[in-house]
Amino acid sequence: MNGAESLVRTLLGCGVDTCFANPGTSEMHFVAALDRIPGMRCVLALFEGVVTGCADGYARIAGRPAATLLHCGPGLANGLANLHNARRASTPIVNIVGDQATHHRPLDAPLTADTEGFARGVSGWVRTATHASRVGGDAAAAVQASRVAPGQIATLVLPADTAWDDGGVVADALPVPPPGQVAPATLRDIARLLRRGEPTLLLLGGAAVHAEGLALAHRIASATGARLMAQQSNARIARGRGRVALERVPYPVDLAVRALSGIAHLVLVGARTPVGFFAYPGKPAYLAPPEAAVHVLARPEQDSPHALAALADELGAAAAPIESAPPAEPVRSGPISPEAVARTLAALMPENAIIADESVSYLRGSFANTLGAPPHDWMQSTGGAIGGGMPLATGAAVAAPGRRVINLEADGSAMYTLQALWTQARERLDVTTVIISNRKYAILLGELAAVGANPGRTALDMMDLSNPDLDWPQLAAGMGVAAARAETMQRFADLLTQSFAASGPFLIELVV
Amino acid sequence: MNGAESLVRTLLGCGVDTCFANPGTSEMHFVAALDRIPGMRCVLALFEGVVTGCADGYARIAGRPAATLLHCGPGLANGLANLHNARRASTPIVNIVGDQATHHRPLDAPLTADTEGFARGVSGWVRTATHASRVGGDAAAAVQASRVAPGQIATLVLPADTAWDDGGVVADALPVPPPGQVAPATLRDIARLLRRGEPTLLLLGGAAVHAEGLALAHRIASATGARLMAQQSNARIARGRGRVALERVPYPVDLAVRALSGIAHLVLVGARTPVGFFAYPGKPAYLAPPEAAVHVLARPEQDSPHALAALADELGAAAAPIESAPPAEPVRSGPISPEAVARTLAALMPENAIIADESVSYLRGSFANTLGAPPHDWMQSTGGAIGGGMPLATGAAVAAPGRRVINLEADGSAMYTLQALWTQARERLDVTTVIISNRKYAILLGELAAVGANPGRTALDMMDLSNPDLDWPQLAAGMGVAAARAETMQRFADLLTQSFAASGPFLIELVV
Repeated sequence: MNGAESLVRTLLGCGVDTCFANPGTSEMHFVAALDRIPGMRCVLALFEGVVTGCADGYARIAGRPAATLLHCGPGLANGLANLHNARRASTPIVNIVGDQATHHRPLDAPLTADTEGFARGVSGWVRTATHASRVGGDAAAAVQASRVAPGQIATLVLPADTAWDDGGVVADALPVPPPGQVAPATLRDIARLLRRGEPTLLLLGGAAVHAEGLALAHRIASATGARLMAQQSNARIARGRGRVALERVPYPVDLAVRALSGIAHLVLVGARTPVGFFAYPGKPAYLAPPEAAVHVLARPEQDSPHALAALADELGAAAAPIESAPPAEPVRSGPISPEAVARTLAALMPENAIIADESVSYLRGSFANTLGAPPHDWMQSTGGAIGGGMPLATGAAVAAPGRRVINLEADGSAMYTLQALWTQARERLDVTTVIISNRKYAILLGELAAVGANPGRTALDMMDLSNPDLDWPQLAAGMGVAAARAETMQRFADLLTQSFAASGPFLIELVV
Repeated sequence: MNGAESLVRTLLGCGVDTCFANPGTSEMHFVAALDRIPGMRCVLALFEGVVTGCADGYARIAGRPAATLLHCGPGLANGLANLHNARRASTPIVNIVGDQATHHRPLDAPLTADTEGFARGVSGWVRTATHASRVGGDAAAAVQASRVAPGQIATLVLPADTAWDDGGVVADALPVPPPGQVAPATLRDIARLLRRGEPTLLLLGGAAVHAEGLALAHRIASATGARLMAQQSNARIARGRGRVALERVPYPVDLAVRALSGIAHLVLVGARTPVGFFAYPGKPAYLAPPEAAVHVLARPEQDSPHALAALADELGAAAAPIESAPPAEPVRSGPISPEAVARTLAALMPENAIIADESVSYLRGSFANTLGAPPHDWMQSTGGAIGGGMPLATGAAVAAPGRRVINLEADGSAMYTLQALWTQARERLDVTTVIISNRKYAILLGELAAVGANPGRTALDMMDLSNPDLDWPQLAAGMGVAAARAETMQRFADLLTQSFAASGPFLIELVV
């Protein structure tokens, strides 16, 4: 058995059975091993940013890591931006990077690069295999590392000779340490704080915004009067009817400061202290009031749902009914607006849909307008690296056959990783992409104003995506995805309905 | 004057007047400064890999650096693969990366990353500005660093507050040290070696394959019987009628070993010792015969043309006539083949064209078939990172208005940075893109055979770009570039002629 085969067999034994790949020469033995070993689903992407974003979306929904397969330092580099997003989402990923043979690397052939150096900034764990006989053990360690709470990227660099040499040994799965538990004293302290009834916000992140955590937080809030809010960016939030209506910390600094004003206590539950996405001249960096005391119920690597359950018990908080927003009605007339789009989506989306949201600025203010939707999961671009949405949607659809994935995607962002559409067509994935086509970098126009700069012709040109207009139905068709353009709400609603009723991918260019 | 304005004014004063940009929030003051200061041509790209590849193509043709403008660590990461190629081409680039404000970085906001860590693997020089008053000086140092022979990437990280704060100071251009000169003793040694008449190869790289260097090398070869050859990958080779017909070291190891067999002496002229692009089981890593002695006339950072001139004089080598290949005739019938495509290109390309070659495997054996073309420059993807071709072509066209740029592009490679087409349309650049559409990763099928692996269904699927077929005319039209498909040689020749006669970009999908 060669090293590559021991790698594939070890991954399968560790529960990793999906691989997103953009392989090259140094990965040929891995690819050949897939032929001999059944059980690994291998999904090809035409760009590495799609590979890594897919792995992120997959694990957010599946709850366990996929493997990637990338080619040398530059192939990894192309995947770094979405690995950055995955790192911020605490997504477990087994990131496999084929590389020059151990004895060839010192010769500095043209494709030789500092692969480990590129990997380090996004990875919690980096190892380079040194011998075929150790590849199996390295792979098991990588899977284990990726699953350490709250989840992280484990990069295994695989020199070609460690894949092709004989002597591979399949390794057993290593135990995954459970997430840390919150100390009883902390629980008592937070319970005592909440009983005081002062203005308190529970800021939720990680597993605390999944269905179970949310329901527990709602019990606590109902019993104590504390407010609940989610972090600004979240890997996955459980939403829709029957779930707690949860606001997020707004993106614009002024709005965030307003949303958090009046708080005397900020309790972090798997969340981090909220700071501005960027600094702006004369605006605060910390978003909570300076006088608010910050408390930690559970750190991101601790077991938030368990901590919430224990806290609810400590408080004697009873199960509390959840008031759902009324079901939404689709908007079929009038101008296209963020609110109309959000309400129409909420009305038409099927039960148990998955939203991959990279709408950036357009739908920012309309998050609440989808609360009346059927139960669904909402994924965000967590690290601010543009180009996450389409790959996230693609990976989520691989993880969840039978669930409709809806990708809300700004046109500017979509252009970074549009190759994902080809993978959606190839794998016949149930992804509905809605391109919010405003033909500009709208967020930058806002940012330019926020930093106090006054745009002239040159600056405006740098934010203008017309000249020429992107034609999304043509781009989609060029990659085998059926598509259409909507310039009215009626047409948008009709296309959504049509897409949700059919299997496979569909793209709607919504001209706003 | 704020820091951003001092940066723009300093760049202009240092002769950097072109900026390829994909800006974000942290770069808004740079963009705003461009409004107030005339003279900087700012070219927008929709993906950072296009930005950096454009800067590479621009400087290869213009002979001086462009600036980039990238957004934070992940934006830089998206540009790393083409910076890797640029590093291997020794291309000067002033790589500007806006980033979090100095006081915001410690808060680890979502988009915060190890920007310098990402930069280091591709940069010869990395500096992070610390104060608005120093940005001008930092910029001047960056331009100087980028131009140190043979050229390198100088990355300047620009925290947002160093751009927006007042107190900017414009810095004067710093002197660029001239390339090192070869010692007289080296010249005499090499001359003595060449006079011995033993089988000797001059392996040329860098400026030695530009027009002047080539002519000098030809004088020496004619006088001494030495052979000439270019490195496998080159930033820019002067070719066509009136220029020396130069072979390159072949890519496949077996062919390279054969091409270099029989050599007793290998003389490096701005080139590096040739090694295999990858290692393969049982094949040599060094391509020259083990018994061949390696000599260095000029290291890459030394002045190769000057060394060749001095060597020619030392040898008393007379000017030697150059036998040009006969003008080629276009092939208008018969099957589409690499040779027919190369001959047709050679026959139809206008005088002084620029070729950006990322045809990967298809045209590999047909390099000699374009020798009968009018004089032209031929650029290659130097670092093996896929996705260099379209951006290279785009940047070259910005650098050379009036010259036709022809991008020979494999379909698989084209998908990595297809966003370049939009920039070509927006800037109305004279780029003719020829997509070699074989609907597979043909190179990987060869590599799979070369490593001795026997592909089955799964492996073949990983190299298959059909299912669905990419439709390049639709993809191009989606980004505003006129395009057509050619399935016969007659149609290919007609489309080439049509494109060369019209201004602006055009794309031909050549189905092979």
